[in-house]
Amino acid sequence: MLVVMQSSASEDKIQKVLEFIKQKGFDTHISKGEDHTVIGAVGSKIIDKRDIELLDGVKEVIRISSPYKLVSRVFKPNDTIIEVNGVKFGGGHVGMIAGPCSVESYEQVDATAQKLAKCGVKILRGGAFKPRTSPYAFQGLGEEGLKILREVADKYGMAVTSEVMEVGQIPLFLKYVDILQVGARNMQNFNLLRCLGEIRKPVLLKRGLSATIEELLMSAEYIVSGGNREVILCERGIRTFEPMTRNTLDISAIPVVQKISHLPIIVDPSHATGLRDKVAPMSKAAIAAGADGLIIEVHNSPETALCDGAQSLYPSDFAELYKDLQALSGIINKVCC
Amino acid sequence: MLVVMQSSASEDKIQKVLEFIKQKGFDTHISKGEDHTVIGAVGSKIIDKRDIELLDGVKEVIRISSPYKLVSRVFKPNDTIIEVNGVKFGGGHVGMIAGPCSVESYEQVDATAQKLAKCGVKILRGGAFKPRTSPYAFQGLGEEGLKILREVADKYGMAVTSEVMEVGQIPLFLKYVDILQVGARNMQNFNLLRCLGEIRKPVLLKRGLSATIEELLMSAEYIVSGGNREVILCERGIRTFEPMTRNTLDISAIPVVQKISHLPIIVDPSHATGLRDKVAPMSKAAIAAGADGLIIEVHNSPETALCDGAQSLYPSDFAELYKDLQALSGIINKVCC
Amino acid sequence: MLVVMQSSASEDKIQKVLEFIKQKGFDTHISKGEDHTVIGAVGSKIIDKRDIELLDGVKEVIRISSPYKLVSRVFKPNDTIIEVNGVKFGGGHVGMIAGPCSVESYEQVDATAQKLAKCGVKILRGGAFKPRTSPYAFQGLGEEGLKILREVADKYGMAVTSEVMEVGQIPLFLKYVDILQVGARNMQNFNLLRCLGEIRKPVLLKRGLSATIEELLMSAEYIVSGGNREVILCERGIRTFEPMTRNTLDISAIPVVQKISHLPIIVDPSHATGLRDKVAPMSKAAIAAGADGLIIEVHNSPETALCDGAQSLYPSDFAELYKDLQALSGIINKVCC
Amino acid sequence: MLVVMQSSASEDKIQKVLEFIKQKGFDTHISKGEDHTVIGAVGSKIIDKRDIELLDGVKEVIRISSPYKLVSRVFKPNDTIIEVNGVKFGGGHVGMIAGPCSVESYEQVDATAQKLAKCGVKILRGGAFKPRTSPYAFQGLGEEGLKILREVADKYGMAVTSEVMEVGQIPLFLKYVDILQVGARNMQNFNLLRCLGEIRKPVLLKRGLSATIEELLMSAEYIVSGGNREVILCERGIRTFEPMTRNTLDISAIPVVQKISHLPIIVDPSHATGLRDKVAPMSKAAIAAGADGLIIEVHNSPETALCDGAQSLYPSDFAELYKDLQALSGIINKVCC
Repeated sequence: MLVVMQSSASEDKIQKVLEFIKQKGFDTHISKGEDHTVIGAVGSKIIDKRDIELLDGVKEVIRISSPYKLVSRVFKPNDTIIEVNGVKFGGGHVGMIAGPCSVESYEQVDATAQKLAKCGVKILRGGAFKPRTSPYAFQGLGEEGLKILREVADKYGMAVTSEVMEVGQIPLFLKYVDILQVGARNMQNFNLLRCLGEIRKPVLLKRGLSATIEELLMSAEYIVSGGNREVILCERGIRTFEPMTRNTLDISAIPVVQKISHLPIIVDPSHATGLRDKVAPMSKAAIAAGADGLIIEVHNSPETALCDGAQSLYPSDFAELYKDLQALSGIINKVCC
Repeated sequence: MLVVMQSSASEDKIQKVLEFIKQKGFDTHISKGEDHTVIGAVGSKIIDKRDIELLDGVKEVIRISSPYKLVSRVFKPNDTIIEVNGVKFGGGHVGMIAGPCSVESYEQVDATAQKLAKCGVKILRGGAFKPRTSPYAFQGLGEEGLKILREVADKYGMAVTSEVMEVGQIPLFLKYVDILQVGARNMQNFNLLRCLGEIRKPVLLKRGLSATIEELLMSAEYIVSGGNREVILCERGIRTFEPMTRNTLDISAIPVVQKISHLPIIVDPSHATGLRDKVAPMSKAAIAAGADGLIIEVHNSPETALCDGAQSLYPSDFAELYKDLQALSGIINKVCC
Repeated sequence: MLVVMQSSASEDKIQKVLEFIKQKGFDTHISKGEDHTVIGAVGSKIIDKRDIELLDGVKEVIRISSPYKLVSRVFKPNDTIIEVNGVKFGGGHVGMIAGPCSVESYEQVDATAQKLAKCGVKILRGGAFKPRTSPYAFQGLGEEGLKILREVADKYGMAVTSEVMEVGQIPLFLKYVDILQVGARNMQNFNLLRCLGEIRKPVLLKRGLSATIEELLMSAEYIVSGGNREVILCERGIRTFEPMTRNTLDISAIPVVQKISHLPIIVDPSHATGLRDKVAPMSKAAIAAGADGLIIEVHNSPETALCDGAQSLYPSDFAELYKDLQALSGIINKVCC
Repeated sequence: MLVVMQSSASEDKIQKVLEFIKQKGFDTHISKGEDHTVIGAVGSKIIDKRDIELLDGVKEVIRISSPYKLVSRVFKPNDTIIEVNGVKFGGGHVGMIAGPCSVESYEQVDATAQKLAKCGVKILRGGAFKPRTSPYAFQGLGEEGLKILREVADKYGMAVTSEVMEVGQIPLFLKYVDILQVGARNMQNFNLLRCLGEIRKPVLLKRGLSATIEELLMSAEYIVSGGNREVILCERGIRTFEPMTRNTLDISAIPVVQKISHLPIIVDPSHATGLRDKVAPMSKAAIAAGADGLIIEVHNSPETALCDGAQSLYPSDFAELYKDLQALSGIINKVCC
């Protein structure tokens, strides 16, 4: 941490700031420049930099070290590769997850999964507990939904991912699910994150609608610092002033995250755009930008879907897109499966 | 709901859209204009309007009725007035809540509350469970914190509000707390909202960092539709591109909410700005714009606060501000206490 | 400027960075801390900090001094007070500007101005050249509009402000207008700003729809560095994801600007909200937060206005609001006229 | 336009609304539904919908037709293909533009262009008049810069694009430049747009930092309605809360624009990200999403560049990227040159 004093700061004020910082448990060293005296503060304590900025004579306080440790590339230079059912995320591998938004019935999941399995998809997605903006909307089948997912996935040799919405649901998810998904609205549900740090199954952590990349990494740090090292990050669009898409997919988050963190980052083009015909171009864009995977909504009959049918691909469209994505991956020296 | 057909839409396409809508449980009526055929659809079912927009020949689908019902002024034209410990929110009354960001010790809460009580404050705030971005930061005293709050509040004849972070904590809060606060990061924690609909104590619901006003009202609808009618809304700043304040306090949300909902709306200037010297001007602005209350962070010794000291007022500053706010309230024919 | 080296940076890399900085015309001094070596660079040259950040071994580059000079409080600690026709902006004075969005006819301006003059308003606003999103919308009366404004203003002893849209229009404006207004869309029309620095009439500079406060001050710096010290800043709402108001009025920009700059800052509640019934509460909020003035749209017959009638006040509503604002100003020890 | 009346609206109020609309020059037709009466209004007049929304008994006013006409796919279903120096934008063609941010000297432009020409680039970019946030920063060489660009381009058989900043500069640009570029900060400089509608050279129109896609199209409509049909749109990043990139490149704007407009849309990954190492991934993403072209900053010696060196590619990096982009274009059945 660097504390920049105002150019007018008296010796007395500088001393008071030094004392304050030391008292908070930091070692200090001073550098007197022509314009400004700068105090360096070294230590492992957490401090709110505004506390120092409010002291008399202080111009600015600058944090040097990152607030996240275990998820950073400085801590672990090599890519973390997460493998589920033979599918790898990270380290040159592009993992594919597909399936319906919500589990509606055994027949629906079975019909969809059969087609996905035929394309080569090995991880099935599907919501059993649904976070809905309206209390009057379909809220999901609950445990029944998880059972259906598991049964169908087993039938086709697939793994399963589904969204967990609260701490109390974790035991249920451990029973049925291979990857526990944390939704955008729960990215800063810190109790949930802490509990997910204690399990030993991969977590798919979605970026919040208005979360910065640093906050996404801090949320991952909650999980990893609890002992669970298998976190897959997911970019799913951020909220901006542009109304023509549901959200604005921040594709540049992919190379940004990959530079500063070793965790894999995948993209959800379905929720980001909210529009079926935008899913293919944005999937391709994500792969071209270096994404470590995709999670795509596919429904055997989008017109009758109980949730987000408008952004779900038809199985045939998905099959075609999947081939294009594999070709694209080849061009940038990656393997997509 | 209005379905606007493309000007080129054939009779056949119009029929298919009509059938689709009827099948979803809506009554329909058609209006053929010069340019566009418009289909009106009436019914109480929830439908994703994108499902219709994707049908052949449809230009646009427009929702007419609000997605929230019970919280709207159409449903209940008069202000909901919520009274806690003699303090009223709504209907011309401006309620005041004040206290430290976090409960750190009995002494700290006692020292702060004593001064607040002397000013006339009757509702004490304080965090026992703290949502922190970093897993390494102070996470609050937990139940011990709630006990301290209760004990101190009782000593000075005050009521207590504190933030509840998950479903499992609700019984604890019912024991110690008078108003249960839902933080911005939990505004769409739907499991929590649903459970808060079942209790019979007021809920203070904060707007999420990137939540629209409609979403805030939908979250309130979750609580009210569960049977708990006492919801106080709270504007606490939204996330924008402007870095000079922590968030951008959306003061215009006050008159906007008051026009469409009967629920009281208060303002949290401390979290919105993150800066002590901005708390007074923004508190005054909120009152002048018609806010039904304020929740302000005050700490007996901000320099040593474990959390958000930088945005906490000194008790003496608060005392002065409180007087100004009471004078301001008078000017706009409201009563502040 | 502070250049923080990576903890792993070799002596060789540090030397190369030092040389690079010196070559760019800066004096340097080094401070070796436990974790990081920090290089201080002092000089008046302008440098893009990313150029240094890309050098090998550099962790981060931190600008210490503000990019604006002449508009900052460091340069001039006392409020700049700008006086036009006896109305003062800044230094405890709240100036009022009112009038129609566009000049439509002599009769319309006359009817509006007469009522405003009766209320005590001494500065009349009105658009002659209109920046319209659509090429098919009413574009203003041009010079004819300026003439009308001048004539009516002279009749009632008022001053005039109107928006100048390009360099070529400046001579015309100098002939008819007392305050030259720069619209939000032109806040970074640097050619225009530079030319306005050469005139000797006050400039009312509106914040761009997505401009940061720092950028607003940099645009003011363009004008002031050209020699024209009379700049009135204007907050008029920024673009966010919230659709219920046209823009989000950033009331906190008022105290933020007042802390770092000596220039007066006023508020335009009409364009910020776009809704007549939100103008009064937001005007009051602005005054309560310490604004140095207001610019409000008033039209003698809003229903027939050619532009922005929806956000224009009726003269009678304005008269009532004006009284409230004067009372409010008194409470916070300011004078409004 | 559809006017939805409140469910409680009396017959009298409906009549008054009908009259108001007719008086504004629209034909009307009424549809009485169970809940709401809806009035359809047909006509070509421009009206501010808020004017009707403020009438008694009106619930909501919905615009059906797009505010842009000539640039929409409804007006012209086939892609507009713009060809400059043998390079095509649109209709399956991906055009490439490259060159330095600013023209600094003949030697610099020559050194850069020589390498670009060798790669096969046929359109050279370079700024002669620079829009700079700070009045103290390098403002460009002006006409001298345009001359250098022209001379070097002619030497290598290239075309030239450069940014025009104001109306007065247009004659100069017509003399030296093949594509006139409008910068993000001038996207709503309507005087400039109107004048560019009168010339007969292609215009490259950049999206403003906080402009919606609809506004971008409206600005293009200004140019096209003036008679100049050759407009190339350019996505260059929008302003969001994410600080890790200069702006957030809105890749989804590509398919969105291509669905509703016939004009080509290209991407500027250099300004969008502001970081050299993000240019390659975002260029690939843009092509994969279907962009009709790219404009990339390349400098023969980025470390000594006077402007934006940090985001400029080295010629060798560009050469490699260009090959990748050509391969990628092949995969999606496009031709890149």
